[in-house]
Amino acid sequence: MNSNTFGRLFSFTSFGESHGPALGCVVDGCPPRVPLAEADIQPRLDRRRPGACRFVSQRGETDRARILSGVFEGKTTGHPICVLVENQDQRPNDYRQLRDVFRPGHADAAHAAKYGIRDHRGGGRSSARETLARVAAGAVARQMLGAFPETAGIRVAAGLIALGQVRADPAKWDDSAIDANPLFCPDPAAVPAMLAALEETMRGGDSLGGVVEIRASGVPAGLGEPVYDRLDARIAQACMGLNAVKGVEIGDGFAAARASGSANNDQMRRPASGRLEDAFLSNHAGGVLGGVSTGQPITARAAIKPTPSISIRQETIGKDLGNVEISVAGRHDPAVAIRAAPVLEAMFWLILADFFLLRRAGENRG
Amino acid sequence: MNSNTFGRLFSFTSFGESHGPALGCVVDGCPPRVPLAEADIQPRLDRRRPGACRFVSQRGETDRARILSGVFEGKTTGHPICVLVENQDQRPNDYRQLRDVFRPGHADAAHAAKYGIRDHRGGGRSSARETLARVAAGAVARQMLGAFPETAGIRVAAGLIALGQVRADPAKWDDSAIDANPLFCPDPAAVPAMLAALEETMRGGDSLGGVVEIRASGVPAGLGEPVYDRLDARIAQACMGLNAVKGVEIGDGFAAARASGSANNDQMRRPASGRLEDAFLSNHAGGVLGGVSTGQPITARAAIKPTPSISIRQETIGKDLGNVEISVAGRHDPAVAIRAAPVLEAMFWLILADFFLLRRAGENRG
Amino acid sequence: MNSNTFGRLFSFTSFGESHGPALGCVVDGCPPRVPLAEADIQPRLDRRRPGACRFVSQRGETDRARILSGVFEGKTTGHPICVLVENQDQRPNDYRQLRDVFRPGHADAAHAAKYGIRDHRGGGRSSARETLARVAAGAVARQMLGAFPETAGIRVAAGLIALGQVRADPAKWDDSAIDANPLFCPDPAAVPAMLAALEETMRGGDSLGGVVEIRASGVPAGLGEPVYDRLDARIAQACMGLNAVKGVEIGDGFAAARASGSANNDQMRRPASGRLEDAFLSNHAGGVLGGVSTGQPITARAAIKPTPSISIRQETIGKDLGNVEISVAGRHDPAVAIRAAPVLEAMFWLILADFFLLRRAGENRG
Amino acid sequence: MNSNTFGRLFSFTSFGESHGPALGCVVDGCPPRVPLAEADIQPRLDRRRPGACRFVSQRGETDRARILSGVFEGKTTGHPICVLVENQDQRPNDYRQLRDVFRPGHADAAHAAKYGIRDHRGGGRSSARETLARVAAGAVARQMLGAFPETAGIRVAAGLIALGQVRADPAKWDDSAIDANPLFCPDPAAVPAMLAALEETMRGGDSLGGVVEIRASGVPAGLGEPVYDRLDARIAQACMGLNAVKGVEIGDGFAAARASGSANNDQMRRPASGRLEDAFLSNHAGGVLGGVSTGQPITARAAIKPTPSISIRQETIGKDLGNVEISVAGRHDPAVAIRAAPVLEAMFWLILADFFLLRRAGENRG
Repeated sequence: MNSNTFGRLFSFTSFGESHGPALGCVVDGCPPRVPLAEADIQPRLDRRRPGACRFVSQRGETDRARILSGVFEGKTTGHPICVLVENQDQRPNDYRQLRDVFRPGHADAAHAAKYGIRDHRGGGRSSARETLARVAAGAVARQMLGAFPETAGIRVAAGLIALGQVRADPAKWDDSAIDANPLFCPDPAAVPAMLAALEETMRGGDSLGGVVEIRASGVPAGLGEPVYDRLDARIAQACMGLNAVKGVEIGDGFAAARASGSANNDQMRRPASGRLEDAFLSNHAGGVLGGVSTGQPITARAAIKPTPSISIRQETIGKDLGNVEISVAGRHDPAVAIRAAPVLEAMFWLILADFFLLRRAGENRG
Repeated sequence: MNSNTFGRLFSFTSFGESHGPALGCVVDGCPPRVPLAEADIQPRLDRRRPGACRFVSQRGETDRARILSGVFEGKTTGHPICVLVENQDQRPNDYRQLRDVFRPGHADAAHAAKYGIRDHRGGGRSSARETLARVAAGAVARQMLGAFPETAGIRVAAGLIALGQVRADPAKWDDSAIDANPLFCPDPAAVPAMLAALEETMRGGDSLGGVVEIRASGVPAGLGEPVYDRLDARIAQACMGLNAVKGVEIGDGFAAARASGSANNDQMRRPASGRLEDAFLSNHAGGVLGGVSTGQPITARAAIKPTPSISIRQETIGKDLGNVEISVAGRHDPAVAIRAAPVLEAMFWLILADFFLLRRAGENRG
Repeated sequence: MNSNTFGRLFSFTSFGESHGPALGCVVDGCPPRVPLAEADIQPRLDRRRPGACRFVSQRGETDRARILSGVFEGKTTGHPICVLVENQDQRPNDYRQLRDVFRPGHADAAHAAKYGIRDHRGGGRSSARETLARVAAGAVARQMLGAFPETAGIRVAAGLIALGQVRADPAKWDDSAIDANPLFCPDPAAVPAMLAALEETMRGGDSLGGVVEIRASGVPAGLGEPVYDRLDARIAQACMGLNAVKGVEIGDGFAAARASGSANNDQMRRPASGRLEDAFLSNHAGGVLGGVSTGQPITARAAIKPTPSISIRQETIGKDLGNVEISVAGRHDPAVAIRAAPVLEAMFWLILADFFLLRRAGENRG
Repeated sequence: MNSNTFGRLFSFTSFGESHGPALGCVVDGCPPRVPLAEADIQPRLDRRRPGACRFVSQRGETDRARILSGVFEGKTTGHPICVLVENQDQRPNDYRQLRDVFRPGHADAAHAAKYGIRDHRGGGRSSARETLARVAAGAVARQMLGAFPETAGIRVAAGLIALGQVRADPAKWDDSAIDANPLFCPDPAAVPAMLAALEETMRGGDSLGGVVEIRASGVPAGLGEPVYDRLDARIAQACMGLNAVKGVEIGDGFAAARASGSANNDQMRRPASGRLEDAFLSNHAGGVLGGVSTGQPITARAAIKPTPSISIRQETIGKDLGNVEISVAGRHDPAVAIRAAPVLEAMFWLILADFFLLRRAGENRG
């Protein structure tokens, strides 16, 4: 598996830079005969699109997805599906001043050390714009899972549950609220305070971090592969593999480390339904035990650092290691956490799709 | 890459069950001519061995490592290295009562749903005993990195920084303290309170969670592969891939989500040494930017849930989904977090070894 | 590694169908700072292009390659390189009659059994048109190897050494002759007879098979990974992975099976140059021993069956398994072996690039 | 996938050297609940065992297989299966004279160039003794395929069809004859001439090459993954990945290159049985079209060079590149082709097992 590929059976390979001609992905391993059209992908891209509201980057992109392969007469063929998005609002010259400077909190210095060459325009390959490949691939994964009876009931929702110091109330989580506000916040009551914090931060030329929670329900038991390719390990990898993520929790997460065994164990009772997932009396585990789904809802959280690009003046160095003062203007998100929600949702679909195929391969109910 | 294999170039495959004849690993991809003997592996295994003190499982195993292949006249040959540990203190009958019962908080129910067959003896494949394979492989990785000038200066230390409600002071971290107490705690001042909490918990038949921090210094810049195989993503996968881990943080972790960009960015100044890693004025990032090491110390934390096996009576179900009450007696760790420290250390060595080889393959300084 | 990906470190993923909007590849793992432009790829594509002469498919494609990512200011960045070729001369209606018919000797029946859906237009994914992705990726591999001193001297040439019953004289192999005739034949003396055989076959509405030999010189010793990822095993996989190839030989190939050990062994004498490759007194092995390159020229041959599309009437069945008589008209190559030469050459570059990076990763000359 | 691992879903990793303590394999990806015991593996190992008759190496090994993991109460658990064989008749001192000499036709020189260190004892890792890992893993694959209704009817047989200049008659192939003679020859009529050739060669201190044919029947249609991981490409890789193999053919192989399309195409007629595999009027393709099985018998041939170890005196060089004369005494097979048959059979089982699981993962008959 290569560095720009994610997944073992249902996999995708991502390519493209922020200010190059195009970005896209090649999805490999999707079973044949899954209904798929550009119209299944476009709405997912639209949700993460820059310029969608004033709290995200104002770059003017339509992010129009073209399927170049792998679909015939409205159905997948079992062959690789290339989805391409051409860049339209490239402004490489906006970045001329950043050519030889390492922006604090960005990949610039580390990537320069690694590669000795760097497409500095808008972060190049390390731009958040790369995540459109994940969202496009995730839309294919969602479509695929929808085509099999056993997984058609899966629902995945990701919402912003904290922005800076403002926290949503997890108990008030409402899936339908997520798309009803520009912050993907599942708790409408928290939105005004979040917006206020954002306004104030933008006025000060600063940025905010946040936390995104992802919830997946209807996931069949038995997904995930012990020992190293566990469902929770893969979720952790996928979340931490997103720009700016610095922490991941499954179920109770760090709170579990402070609990006693008697409080943290999810006890069980005979399920009237006869289904394992209905046996559990609680869900501290977040739907994963021994690296494998239990059928209970899977819950995870990703901690996202504040956007490193801020207009407040900061000290840094250049390629020659000399001192520079920098104020990063431009079309940046004041809180990258906001647009992380649709991306993390996509990664969940991709993970579930991959483990579903792996389970099909390996099961023996004979 | 298969489920029981970890790593792309420097990889290992683990096998074995808690009460089967043996456990072990096959390390593949280790360069030739690295000095390696059983004496380089044994001390690492001894640190995680059960029975080492009264606060861990009392199972009587010597965990004697035999190298079966890949070493010739004291040096690696470039061929796969199999390290085998035969089980000696198997007591399968101790587990007879658990044959048809799903222990709360354990993999039992999920794995039964997945496989339809289950080696119930001491957790079978999902036993913490599997981690000796990781420790053995990690010892080979450590040896390998020690053999190359650029990585010979790497130091990795993992310590228990929280046990239940007791927290060590991160500022008092002392590498040399870690092996001087039975809890692998880097802050000697925190040990008495931790021990007291442990004693009390054991008396009550309950268990405790904890947090392990891992610190790696001397890591060269440029390790890690954007986009999906980032250094931090792989760390997250490896930590979450360990039994009982429910959360992972890199650098400031969840605290970064509450910070502003101006506070969280690591500003830089011209380094007198001319080395990038000396330019940073802080290390909120934990040594990783854009998925790639910066040369600063890498810091990560893993949240570990309390041992699910407790003697307090709990409600659960059996294979037939019928109700059972269970009290898990036996040779269990009161806090699995304690023995996680040597294992997480090993995983760090393995990750660094793999990314070091990947960087050697891909670099072009021409 | 996914089905449409080839290579472990220097890898590429191919996508696209014969009559879809576009075909292309994503090359991952190319080191940074390698000079690369579309002009380095285009000439390689032009060599395998349909319509180049009257003995190959007359489809009118310019096969214009666009680099969409991974190159910045004329150099690779270390990030994935997407090369896209848009189809221009799609004529899906030409294939309407083939929609429900399984052409003899083609993938049609097997793929219908596998996928239950099939893009019948020009073979869809199983069209020889897919090989342009290999040629584009091979051009990148060639460019990469040219950028490192140790591999800059590698030369790869593939030539048609047999067409139907006509055989070229291997002793008269002349690299420079290959591009001087439309058949990629390295022995000019054999060309007239080959052309005559081709004319006659075309007149009869039939097709011919052939043999392509590939020779690589200047390959450093030590490439290839025992035990399963041997240089010769990978060559065999790559050759047999090309449409219509039914046999592969390395060095003396099947003739070695009839030889005695004393005749087949390549004896050695002290090399005046001090270089291992100069020690061998013969090269029955074809440059590979124990799966690893010796520094001698690598030689391989691929046996290619006659184009299955012929206008001679044949018996076959349709999707409903009912009887059909078929005469395949259209723009087919009378001998697919001809255009296989540039593709096999590309595969050699790709294999050598991958093993070169693998050797860099694993070597220890300390 | 690492160099010592074969397979994507049903995979195995091999380890061990000819004169080290042990050899073995770790099979990963075997579905649970497959009946498996050491008695299913041992007979396969016994067939390839040295010392079984006077025409193979006289090394005295019992090759006793121990299953160390992955089996519980007579069934696989879905976890990795380690099979270990301890070496018993190590005679490292027999090889002392070869320590610094490169035997002609062996891996010695190439491996020395690659690794800079070499376990010279009996070929070390490049010994044919490594193939016992393949045979053990193949026995597990065979057992697994036997446990699923769709694949329970698969039969694989490999036989020696040529030894030196002596050729068996393919038309007289008789599966049951293979184990009735010490050469694994499927044509009893050819055995006397083969034995005579062998005797004469041994008297002269020389060795012979040979050809092994492998036939698999009962293989369901739809196995194999276009484009790069084709069934025939994988067969080619596996055959060429065996010591001493220099050529591979599928179906008509090199003869197809001399045929016309009208003669080589396998025409089809409506199958009375309604099954695709019964539609074909011939099997020039060897059961594979477009990289995918058609349901017809799969046929392949591997050309195996003569054993390079001969007692006839030969010129060679040593580690210091100086001239040496060498006569290789010891316990060598006069024709490695003989013992290749059981190994190639095992590789077929492994390939079919892997593609069967891949097909289960990817199919959609909904």
